[in-house]
Amino acid sequence: MVDAALADGTAHRRSVFEVFARRLPGGRRYGVVAGTGRLLDAIDRFRFGDAELAWLEAEGVVRRPTLDWLADYRFAGDVTGYREGELYFPSSPVLTVEGGFAEAVLLETLILSVLNADSAVATAAARMVSAAGDRPLAEMGGRRTHERAAVSAARAAWIAGFSATSNLEAGRRWGVPTMGTAAHSFTLLHDTEEDAFQAQIDAMGAGTTLLVDTYDVTEAVETAVRLAGAELGAVRIDSGDLPTVVSAVRQQLDRLGATSTRITVTNDLDEYAIAGLAASPVDSYGAGTRLVGGSGHPTAGFVYKLVERADEDGSMRPVAKRSAQKAGSGGRKWAFRLLADGIATTERVVVSDAEPTLAGARQVTVPLMTAGLADHAHVGVAGVRAAREHHAAVVRELPQEGTRLSPGDPAIPTDLG
Amino acid sequence: MVDAALADGTAHRRSVFEVFARRLPGGRRYGVVAGTGRLLDAIDRFRFGDAELAWLEAEGVVRRPTLDWLADYRFAGDVTGYREGELYFPSSPVLTVEGGFAEAVLLETLILSVLNADSAVATAAARMVSAAGDRPLAEMGGRRTHERAAVSAARAAWIAGFSATSNLEAGRRWGVPTMGTAAHSFTLLHDTEEDAFQAQIDAMGAGTTLLVDTYDVTEAVETAVRLAGAELGAVRIDSGDLPTVVSAVRQQLDRLGATSTRITVTNDLDEYAIAGLAASPVDSYGAGTRLVGGSGHPTAGFVYKLVERADEDGSMRPVAKRSAQKAGSGGRKWAFRLLADGIATTERVVVSDAEPTLAGARQVTVPLMTAGLADHAHVGVAGVRAAREHHAAVVRELPQEGTRLSPGDPAIPTDLG
Repeated sequence: MVDAALADGTAHRRSVFEVFARRLPGGRRYGVVAGTGRLLDAIDRFRFGDAELAWLEAEGVVRRPTLDWLADYRFAGDVTGYREGELYFPSSPVLTVEGGFAEAVLLETLILSVLNADSAVATAAARMVSAAGDRPLAEMGGRRTHERAAVSAARAAWIAGFSATSNLEAGRRWGVPTMGTAAHSFTLLHDTEEDAFQAQIDAMGAGTTLLVDTYDVTEAVETAVRLAGAELGAVRIDSGDLPTVVSAVRQQLDRLGATSTRITVTNDLDEYAIAGLAASPVDSYGAGTRLVGGSGHPTAGFVYKLVERADEDGSMRPVAKRSAQKAGSGGRKWAFRLLADGIATTERVVVSDAEPTLAGARQVTVPLMTAGLADHAHVGVAGVRAAREHHAAVVRELPQEGTRLSPGDPAIPTDLG
Repeated sequence: MVDAALADGTAHRRSVFEVFARRLPGGRRYGVVAGTGRLLDAIDRFRFGDAELAWLEAEGVVRRPTLDWLADYRFAGDVTGYREGELYFPSSPVLTVEGGFAEAVLLETLILSVLNADSAVATAAARMVSAAGDRPLAEMGGRRTHERAAVSAARAAWIAGFSATSNLEAGRRWGVPTMGTAAHSFTLLHDTEEDAFQAQIDAMGAGTTLLVDTYDVTEAVETAVRLAGAELGAVRIDSGDLPTVVSAVRQQLDRLGATSTRITVTNDLDEYAIAGLAASPVDSYGAGTRLVGGSGHPTAGFVYKLVERADEDGSMRPVAKRSAQKAGSGGRKWAFRLLADGIATTERVVVSDAEPTLAGARQVTVPLMTAGLADHAHVGVAGVRAAREHHAAVVRELPQEGTRLSPGDPAIPTDLG
């Protein structure tokens, strides 16, 4: 596309691309935007190096003028959109990219990859957080997704309200609080379960979390309290019928005087399993497989569509696909959230070339990158922290129906004007 | 775990870890191992740099002896397992890692992340290839998964029989054949669809693939053939009721004399949608969202379990978790595929410390890494090509029932002896 557009002179037509989702998967009530900070940084660093250019040339993928153009590529356009951590609904204009056609179309794959992956995890995470109520959730899914996606998933889950991650690189890179667990292999490595527990207590102190389901849970809990005393931090249960096992372990811990020892459970938990444990004496959850897989929806369904572009004379014109099922809505868009007594009622989307104002509504679309320079508030460790805070604030705006786990309509309607 | 095991002296106990899946998700008949080549290379490069060590020290994650041990870390153990592209079944010992406990347990997350992600895509891809019969399939899912996972997914799909990818980095990095498409935005950029088609034909020649569903499909096909003539390579359809639209377009192309112009379809295709188009005059498919999401199962479900380790006196002892639901099977394992007239009948798993032989059976477990050195046949571009060839050979061993898309039992039983 870039090659052909450079040749026929349309490559530099001013263009506006929009990221949006046609629907929320699985009858979900809202989605959570994540990945924005990673994306702004990635756009800033997006270049074609010698190795890439040599390969494109050798393979004949594009012609010489395009190779030269790619060698100088650096995005110099504008990006506006939803803050990271913000909620979105069907047709929410989550991100708007404005620049020359070639410069903006080249970013499509990068933009969609980052936002689709991270928002899928954040959306699933938010539902689990909602189901867990006041109980903390730890992200433990690094082993169930691509090694790089694992780091991003831990970041996205934290933005959506998780308390910690087992992914140390997410701690180092993004400032996400980290935690660790012992695996069954650590118990099996030792001659006895008691040896394993003692080694862990010696290394980590009595406040550690002991894994009690390698052999017999009741025996393991007895051993754990005998070795660590009532100061034992927690026990982890990773198998069995959790409501039954958890209740029995709680009673046993209390009988042994370990009334402040917590119980943490893991085992392919999703938002429904977490909700199903609400009445059980669980103190914290670890979620992995289902979380990093977006709880059945591993991609957010965002698309990147041209919604406006310049004519030959430079005047801007809204454009949209017209064929069946996938019709889009043209024009540059800005979103506002209408609120009544602090509760969201409508996602109002306004089509306008200039930034509009809407009295009494919360402005959802904000500047993210201007002339190729990212707004620093949204990137790096500070950006992640801001996203987490923003998410916590806006999720409180949801109407009561909006946090239901069951399939249904979006929490609020989108008004496209 | 490493910190505690270094402190109590168990860290260096010789240990054998095994990667296996307890079941195949969704009643699938077989799984496809992928990621092996990427993994061997990643193990070879797995180090703790100054930045990582400084962070671990500052955060107090581990103590000084562990920091020193990590600074010198380099895996020097052995890895055996299934070749990349091989089929696997429940309890197949897909990978076996042997080394000191600490040196081998440290690789758990890396090993599972790579194999779980890539095998999920390869398994879904193999089912789509099987459903597509002789028609070629292109991987187009880069926008629906994490930006790095996208490259690995293209690689995994090619190993499992896809013909090409739209991911240029997968072409550059792994030698996967690449292809491109025009998006709706390219048509919308131009003043008319005719302008867009002409620009593309000028750049790519008449053999290009024109996207015909931005406005009216019938008009677009007429325009496409008028501009490109009967040499028009292909038209792509990305929306609508595909069987109906495809039939109409085929008839129209034939009426216009473009009898050799091919029809390619894309639009959230999975193995079932592809099978449903078997009777339609489709020439090739593009699969994206569903492919990179593992067609509903984004992770392969592999776990990494300690199956054998040394006692204090150095003698090896099989170990296994004993509690409910997740009981494992101890001991070092080797797999053989029993065949009758070239068709697989049984996955025979033999527990043995030394490499056994089994007359008349195909040896599935092969050496992959010895004393920390990867076998070159399995890594890099050559490894990918070998994996694709191996997959094509072994998928032909499946019994007829084994390629059914419907849920059911594994294609062959696993005999754990």
